[in-house]
Amino acid sequence: MRACGLIVEYNPFHNGHLYHQEASREQTDADVTVAVMSGSFLQRGEPAIIDKFSRTKAALYHGVDVVLELPFIYAVQYADLFAKGAIATLDAIGVDTVCFGSESGRIDDFSNHYEQFKSHETQFHSVRQQFLNEGDSFPQASTKAYDAIGLRSQELDLGQPNNILGFSYVKAIKELHSSIQPDTITRTKSHYHDETINYSIASATSIRKELLEYGQLTEASQNALPDETVRQLHHYADKALWHDWEHYFPYLQLLVQTHSHRQLQHIHGMIEGLEYRLKQTVDQADSFREWMSLLKTKRYTWTRLQRMFVHLLTNTTKDDVAAYDELTTPPYVRLLGMTQTGQQWIRSKKKSLEVPLISNMQQTDHDLMAIEERATDAYYLPIEPHKRRLLKQQEIKGPIIV
Amino acid sequence: MRACGLIVEYNPFHNGHLYHQEASREQTDADVTVAVMSGSFLQRGEPAIIDKFSRTKAALYHGVDVVLELPFIYAVQYADLFAKGAIATLDAIGVDTVCFGSESGRIDDFSNHYEQFKSHETQFHSVRQQFLNEGDSFPQASTKAYDAIGLRSQELDLGQPNNILGFSYVKAIKELHSSIQPDTITRTKSHYHDETINYSIASATSIRKELLEYGQLTEASQNALPDETVRQLHHYADKALWHDWEHYFPYLQLLVQTHSHRQLQHIHGMIEGLEYRLKQTVDQADSFREWMSLLKTKRYTWTRLQRMFVHLLTNTTKDDVAAYDELTTPPYVRLLGMTQTGQQWIRSKKKSLEVPLISNMQQTDHDLMAIEERATDAYYLPIEPHKRRLLKQQEIKGPIIV
Repeated sequence: MRACGLIVEYNPFHNGHLYHQEASREQTDADVTVAVMSGSFLQRGEPAIIDKFSRTKAALYHGVDVVLELPFIYAVQYADLFAKGAIATLDAIGVDTVCFGSESGRIDDFSNHYEQFKSHETQFHSVRQQFLNEGDSFPQASTKAYDAIGLRSQELDLGQPNNILGFSYVKAIKELHSSIQPDTITRTKSHYHDETINYSIASATSIRKELLEYGQLTEASQNALPDETVRQLHHYADKALWHDWEHYFPYLQLLVQTHSHRQLQHIHGMIEGLEYRLKQTVDQADSFREWMSLLKTKRYTWTRLQRMFVHLLTNTTKDDVAAYDELTTPPYVRLLGMTQTGQQWIRSKKKSLEVPLISNMQQTDHDLMAIEERATDAYYLPIEPHKRRLLKQQEIKGPIIV
Repeated sequence: MRACGLIVEYNPFHNGHLYHQEASREQTDADVTVAVMSGSFLQRGEPAIIDKFSRTKAALYHGVDVVLELPFIYAVQYADLFAKGAIATLDAIGVDTVCFGSESGRIDDFSNHYEQFKSHETQFHSVRQQFLNEGDSFPQASTKAYDAIGLRSQELDLGQPNNILGFSYVKAIKELHSSIQPDTITRTKSHYHDETINYSIASATSIRKELLEYGQLTEASQNALPDETVRQLHHYADKALWHDWEHYFPYLQLLVQTHSHRQLQHIHGMIEGLEYRLKQTVDQADSFREWMSLLKTKRYTWTRLQRMFVHLLTNTTKDDVAAYDELTTPPYVRLLGMTQTGQQWIRSKKKSLEVPLISNMQQTDHDLMAIEERATDAYYLPIEPHKRRLLKQQEIKGPIIV
C-alpha cells in the first residue's frame, strides 16, 4: 500500500487544506492518505475553532485514512520548524510521498530551488539578517533574501505563502535525509482576505467573520464548507463553544500583569523587548483584537504576536523549544484517528516503526507530552469545568475509528 | 495631638473591626485615630469584597482620621508577619498607642505573657515543631506550644483568635523596639460562624452567605452594617462587582495547569508538596470552594490554602516574602485617605518622618510597590477592562479626603 502524507490543520477557516487533501489523493494515486494535523493551536498562532478530536472526525469523513498529531512544540512555529516537525512525523510513520498545495504546482522547481538555496545559504542568512536589522519582519526579510539569491523566479516565487511553506517541506525532507518523495499540486486561490462569501470555496476570513459576529454559520457558509465540517462545528458548539482568542484575553492580561519582565523574557517568541511593550499596553485594550492592534508594528507581525501569545498562555519557554529544535526523530507518534483502511495500513507499518506509536496521552511520560498536556489544558480553559472534563477524557481514550 | 493606631481590614464580613475602632477611640481618649488597613487581599487569604478605596471611605466616615495601606507582602500572612508589617507602619508614621480587641481585654496580661514567652522561646519552637511533625496545622501546633509553656492561662488564653493576634502585636512592638504603647479592649463576640443574622452586630459568615446567594444585601444585613459601609457596598457594585474567590477560579486553574511543579514551588506558601496535590485536583472541581474542600486536610487549613492561592494569583514568590521578612522599617508609608483632623496630624508629623509618605503609586519605584501593583492588577481582573481602568486610576490620584 502506497501512502501519501499531508500536512493539515483542518480548521474550517483554512478550507484550502480540505481541498488539497481531496485533490492530492486523486493526483498521487495513493492507497492511503496520512495526515499530520496541528492539535489545539494552529500555525498562525490561533486556537483552533473546534478541538482536534472533532477535526480528526471531519478529516476521516472527508477521505483521510490516518490522522496523526503534530506535536504542539512544532505546530505554532515559523514555516521551517513547523515543516521539520511535520516531515519528521510523517517520516517516522513511513509514508512514501508528501503532497502539498502551492501556487507553483511543479515539484521540480522546488528541488531546483533547494539546490540553489544550498549553494547560497550563507548569503541568504546574511542578507536576511541585514533586512531584519533594518526593521523588516521575519517573512519580509526572508522574501527579500530569497529575492537576492534568485529564488523569486518566474518558475517558483518564494514570495507567495504556499510556495514558502512547500519549500520548507522540501528543505525538511532534504535536511532530515528522508526518503519521502515530495509532490505538489496547484493551489486554487481561496482569496484569503475577501470579506463576503460568494463562491463555493469560501474564504477563511469571511467564515471567521460570520462565526464571530453572528455566533452561527449562515447558509452561505454551510454551503461553502464540507458537510462533515459543518456537522462537527455544530456538534462541538453544543458541547462547548467555538474557540476564539477573545476567550483567552483575561488570562493573557493576568500573565502579563503579574509576571516580571524577566519571567516574560523566558517565553518563546518574547523577543527584542516585546515584554515591555506588552506591559505598557495591557491596560489600554478592551479586547484581544484591540490589544493586538496596539502591539502590531512593521516588525511584530500579527502572526508573530499571536504565536507569542500562544506560548505565553501555555507557558512554553525558549528552553522548551530549543530542546526540540535540533531533534530529527520525534520521541513518539500520536495517532488521533483512522479509517478501516488506515487501520490496515497502520498494522502493516507497526512492526517496523522506530518510535512508539501511541494514541493515549498517558502512554508516555516524555517531556514532549507534558508540553502537549499544558496546551490541551490551556485550550479547554474557556469551557465550564464539568464540560471540560468530558472533553479531556478524549485524550486518554484510544484513537477515533470511523 | 495624641494618635491611636488601629489595625484593620474594613471588610464588611469582618465587622468586629468597625466595632473596635469606635470603642477604642472612646477608651484611649486619643485625638486622632490612625488605621493601617489591608489593601486588596485580606489576612485570611481572601479578596476584599470591595476595593481598598471604598473601604477607606467607609473607614473615614466611621471615625477613622487617617488610613494607611498595609503593604500586600505583610497583609496576607500568618499573625506574626502580619503584625510586624502593621506595627512597623504605625511606628514609622509615629502613633502613640495601638489599640486592639481581644477576648482578654487586659493589656498587662499580654506584657506578662511576652516576658514568659521570651524566657521559654526555644522550648516553644521545639514543641511547635514537634506538633507540626505530627501533622498538626500551624495554628494548632502554635496553640499547643503556648499551652506547653504555660501561655494558655486563665488570665490570657493564647488559644483564642483575637488574643493570638493581639499577642503578635505586642511581640512586634517589643521586637521592633517601638515606643508605641499597646492597649486592648474586650472584643464583643461576633459569633463568627452563625449562619443567620439575628442580632445587630451581624456575623461575618451570614452576611457573606447572603451576598453570595442573593447577590444583594437583605434588610437584616443592612441594619446590621454601618450605613456608610452599606453605601460603599452598593456604590462599588454599581461600578464593578463584589469580589469573591469564585471570580478568580479560572485564573488559578490556568496557573496550576501550565506551571511546572518546580515553578509552583517558588510560590510563597507552596509547602510540603502542595503543588502535587494542586495538580492532582485541579481538574476535579467545578468551583473554587469545591477545589478547596478537595485540598483541605488537617495540615493544610482553609486559611493557609487561601493565602497560598493569593500568592499564586499574584505571582508572589518565597524570595519576594523573604526579602521583607526581616525588614524593620517599611521603605515608604502609603496614605490612602484622611479627614481634616487627620490631615492636620499628618502635617504635624510629616517633617519628622524617616521614610517617604506617599499617596500615589507612581511616587516610588521601590520593589515593594511593584509587588503592590501586581496585587492590584490581579484583584481588579474580574472586572471588564474599561471599568477596571477607571478603578485603577485611583491608584495614581492623591489621598481620599473627606
